[in-house]
Amino acid sequence: MDAVLRQSKAVCPFVSMASMSTLRTSNLQLLARGCPVMSKAMAVQTAKYGGAAAPSRSFSSQPKTGRAKIHTSRNQEARAVESPVLQGRDKGPLPPLSMFAHARKVSPLTSSDACNSASTFDYNAFYDHELDKKHKDKTYRYFNNINRLAKEFPRAHMSYKEERVTVWCANDYLGMGRNPRVLETMHQTLEEYGAGAGGTRNISGHNKHALELEGLLAKLHAKESALVFSSCYVANDATLATLGSKMPDCVILSDSLNHASMIQGIRHSGTKKIVFKHNDVADLEAKLASLPLHVPKIIAFESVYSMCGSIGPIEAICDLADKYGAITFLDEVHAVGMYGPNGAGVAEHLDWEAHREGMPRGTIMDRVDIITGTLGKAYGCVGGYIAGSAKLVDMIRSLAPGFIFTTSLPPATMAGAKASVEYQMEYDGDRKLQQLHTRAVKEELNNRDIPVIPNPSHIVPLLVGNAELAKSASDMLLQDYGIYIQSINYPTVPVGQERLRITPTPGHVKQYRGELAEALDEIWTRLGIKHTSDWAAEGGFIGATREIMATGGMQSVNEALLERDELRGAVGRVAAV
Amino acid sequence: MDAVLRQSKAVCPFVSMASMSTLRTSNLQLLARGCPVMSKAMAVQTAKYGGAAAPSRSFSSQPKTGRAKIHTSRNQEARAVESPVLQGRDKGPLPPLSMFAHARKVSPLTSSDACNSASTFDYNAFYDHELDKKHKDKTYRYFNNINRLAKEFPRAHMSYKEERVTVWCANDYLGMGRNPRVLETMHQTLEEYGAGAGGTRNISGHNKHALELEGLLAKLHAKESALVFSSCYVANDATLATLGSKMPDCVILSDSLNHASMIQGIRHSGTKKIVFKHNDVADLEAKLASLPLHVPKIIAFESVYSMCGSIGPIEAICDLADKYGAITFLDEVHAVGMYGPNGAGVAEHLDWEAHREGMPRGTIMDRVDIITGTLGKAYGCVGGYIAGSAKLVDMIRSLAPGFIFTTSLPPATMAGAKASVEYQMEYDGDRKLQQLHTRAVKEELNNRDIPVIPNPSHIVPLLVGNAELAKSASDMLLQDYGIYIQSINYPTVPVGQERLRITPTPGHVKQYRGELAEALDEIWTRLGIKHTSDWAAEGGFIGATREIMATGGMQSVNEALLERDELRGAVGRVAAV
Repeated sequence: MDAVLRQSKAVCPFVSMASMSTLRTSNLQLLARGCPVMSKAMAVQTAKYGGAAAPSRSFSSQPKTGRAKIHTSRNQEARAVESPVLQGRDKGPLPPLSMFAHARKVSPLTSSDACNSASTFDYNAFYDHELDKKHKDKTYRYFNNINRLAKEFPRAHMSYKEERVTVWCANDYLGMGRNPRVLETMHQTLEEYGAGAGGTRNISGHNKHALELEGLLAKLHAKESALVFSSCYVANDATLATLGSKMPDCVILSDSLNHASMIQGIRHSGTKKIVFKHNDVADLEAKLASLPLHVPKIIAFESVYSMCGSIGPIEAICDLADKYGAITFLDEVHAVGMYGPNGAGVAEHLDWEAHREGMPRGTIMDRVDIITGTLGKAYGCVGGYIAGSAKLVDMIRSLAPGFIFTTSLPPATMAGAKASVEYQMEYDGDRKLQQLHTRAVKEELNNRDIPVIPNPSHIVPLLVGNAELAKSASDMLLQDYGIYIQSINYPTVPVGQERLRITPTPGHVKQYRGELAEALDEIWTRLGIKHTSDWAAEGGFIGATREIMATGGMQSVNEALLERDELRGAVGRVAAV
Repeated sequence: MDAVLRQSKAVCPFVSMASMSTLRTSNLQLLARGCPVMSKAMAVQTAKYGGAAAPSRSFSSQPKTGRAKIHTSRNQEARAVESPVLQGRDKGPLPPLSMFAHARKVSPLTSSDACNSASTFDYNAFYDHELDKKHKDKTYRYFNNINRLAKEFPRAHMSYKEERVTVWCANDYLGMGRNPRVLETMHQTLEEYGAGAGGTRNISGHNKHALELEGLLAKLHAKESALVFSSCYVANDATLATLGSKMPDCVILSDSLNHASMIQGIRHSGTKKIVFKHNDVADLEAKLASLPLHVPKIIAFESVYSMCGSIGPIEAICDLADKYGAITFLDEVHAVGMYGPNGAGVAEHLDWEAHREGMPRGTIMDRVDIITGTLGKAYGCVGGYIAGSAKLVDMIRSLAPGFIFTTSLPPATMAGAKASVEYQMEYDGDRKLQQLHTRAVKEELNNRDIPVIPNPSHIVPLLVGNAELAKSASDMLLQDYGIYIQSINYPTVPVGQERLRITPTPGHVKQYRGELAEALDEIWTRLGIKHTSDWAAEGGFIGATREIMATGGMQSVNEALLERDELRGAVGRVAAV
């Protein structure tokens, strides 16, 4: 205490006038009344809050000067001043402020801040500059306030509860976010085990919910083991970064349309990256062949590419991996819950019978080394995971900072996700209906000459080709038609390929689909957005030349089934929930 | 189709014997009966499953050979073979497998895999090697199955529901994970808005829950703006990586005990990093002074260091930042909810009066440029955030991939976290009681000569100093005493500083504290772990020489208050919930 007082005396002209014994015995609040800086501040406080004005507050709100700094030091005030002020107003804040004395310290500075500031980096100008760039190239994002209503799926309200819109772009592809079994499981778990996990997996955040969910996910993908992360962004990032940085001279071969999380994971690994052309097996092979055979290689790719809906050539890539001694890292984020007899994704879908019979050995899914998936899209919750061999998963569990040093997902989240995965393993009606609605939407829009980027998946991307137009179309849909479809601009898609990305769900029954087609038709005309025929006159558009034949041939196959499911869905299940 | 058949003919000696017209018109299943590989596999299948055996399954489960590969191609099988198999067994999987034809393709491979495999990288050996290292240096982690019970806080059950333990190491410091207001809010939100957010913040995952939570967090820290992430690991990583990589020639100065998330963020930024000695302002200043004034600099540090409980010199670091033109990045993860009149953390605590009166201007918290915090520890939920100026936050929102490309936290999580933050802004009884229990535990263990690493915060780290001993002590506590305290080993703490980290909560009433002290006393003796006096004979231990005086002086200050709160807590609130 004396040391602090001595230090104060040396710096503050006011305190220097008082003797050490005075300082030791006096109430600093009294002394402060004689201070030219503090007395004014205290007068203002007294006028504002009455006699109980706290000098420490006044001190703190002063402009920063050498003198004020001394006064703000808790080392002096904590005991002498604060105790009486606090008495009768508070039962005593804890821990005592003096415990933190060293956190609030007399600064050793002597030079003037003003003099320095002229030549220091201008952070605000830098932030401005970065934001200006986003505004200028029209990639600045304005978020829409969308509150998806569990009881009115796929409807949501905006800022006002009365303002309803139909959501046509969420990734809750199957409406599992409002599935009664999922919600009931979550309510029960919340009640029994509380809101949060309370720690990292190593320190009190490991529980039966994590064990059961990981066990189920391993079973789903017919792998030995699985590991749950905060998100699949983190799962991809942490896994690729760990593998790439640990394996000596590792090379990661990455599809050119890979998701940002994989791109970041590869970057974070610090290892060599080779990008191959999207879904181009020949290009991948040429790049694999250029590498020494003994070098570890990871081929990172996706099953369903989110923004164009294309499907990765999984089997051919597994073949190449075998041939060139690589391992495969397959992101099934947009496919889990959506494809395959158990909803395990496209890799499972390709060997439907084998997996339905529970005979995964030798299948394509079995050959993939690492599968990553999310619990936040078709499964309607949040979180991500990897599945693979026991050793691989144990290694990632043991080494990946993004897994080790973070709080576990809450028990209710994990239990809800488990219920959702189980539900989709048992029942495939949601994903069937989703596919039928997807097909109906694609067909209707194709009939209206609206450019659907062709693909064999559940994604319906509409090409706009200009960032401002895409945003205008999205805004107009929302404001004039009560339809929410976010525009997708750079950097999520390349410049010139801006689009509206539509994701039909089992809840998008005929009425909603009709409203959507009408609205899009009108907006395409109002804004003068190019139609399919316009693109055709210019030689076609992204994906159309290569894939349109394959998709076109599928469109009328299941019309009868569509109508039957439609009725069942609308009357029996979808409308009822 | 013909192209595929031609390709098959060229590779498979069996198929090459058939004419193109035969292949075109025949059922491949029939031809397969003549194939030396397939015929055996089909015989096995038939014996096992009867006549409906699906060739595709049999083909897939064959050992991988050049020939088998051709047969597994869906392009050939999908229509000829699968349709009849599916009929009458399934209402038709969707989408049709043929939509994914290109995902399952004839491989262009000709060379033999077996020949290559000898010289390719041995991934399994590599995983083994990495795991072996963890086992050998005793840092391999065994997770304990701890199911924290909301209605019996701080008790939990292990694998069996009957097997109760007292949790002494969770980061749910205040028991907010079982706070009735938090749970009720979550139940309501879950019911109304469902399980998951359904998208990224940009695509249908932005909602009133995010807006309200971020508004509240900005208010809590008296900043213009706040941004919520999946976790504070992600918040730290994404923010530091973005700032460091975007600001030209940026240098990040990092406290030597910074959390892994900051270390990763700095690494991921790819920019220059300078580590300064833990809490050593002189060392930091020397390093700042060595850098050109105009260069952008970020000082990254924490308020409460989780594993030792030390407190960062926040004000002095703000002073240095001003002097040398740096910005401050303060991780308050272990402090939010725990300190300050509103629970905003240590920075707020240092200007208690100013913040209680709602006058943050000029305070230390006001001077900190970026504050990061978690919703998963004292607030009892999950998620993390940053708070700062509107421009800074908008820039991170616009540029950080870890924010942009991931699913938002669920509505119920955000609503629960908001309720928790609000509760702690209104009521400080939980954190008072937590501090009183902390003090009581530290005092009791000091009295028993058990080495508490001295610190002024709510963390109670006990030095063990050996990884195996720490694990043995932890295991013994769990098995013999029903007390769960995870051992903390490398890399979370340096080798030789292994410890047990105790985190008292408002729920750790006298009975639990007594049981803990007894158990630790016995275990310290049973395992021959060094006592404080042993360390003293050797010249002291980590932190003790420097800080023990400061802490020691505080221990008897609030004994009377402790007893009063103790009673109130045990009878009135803690025991009742």
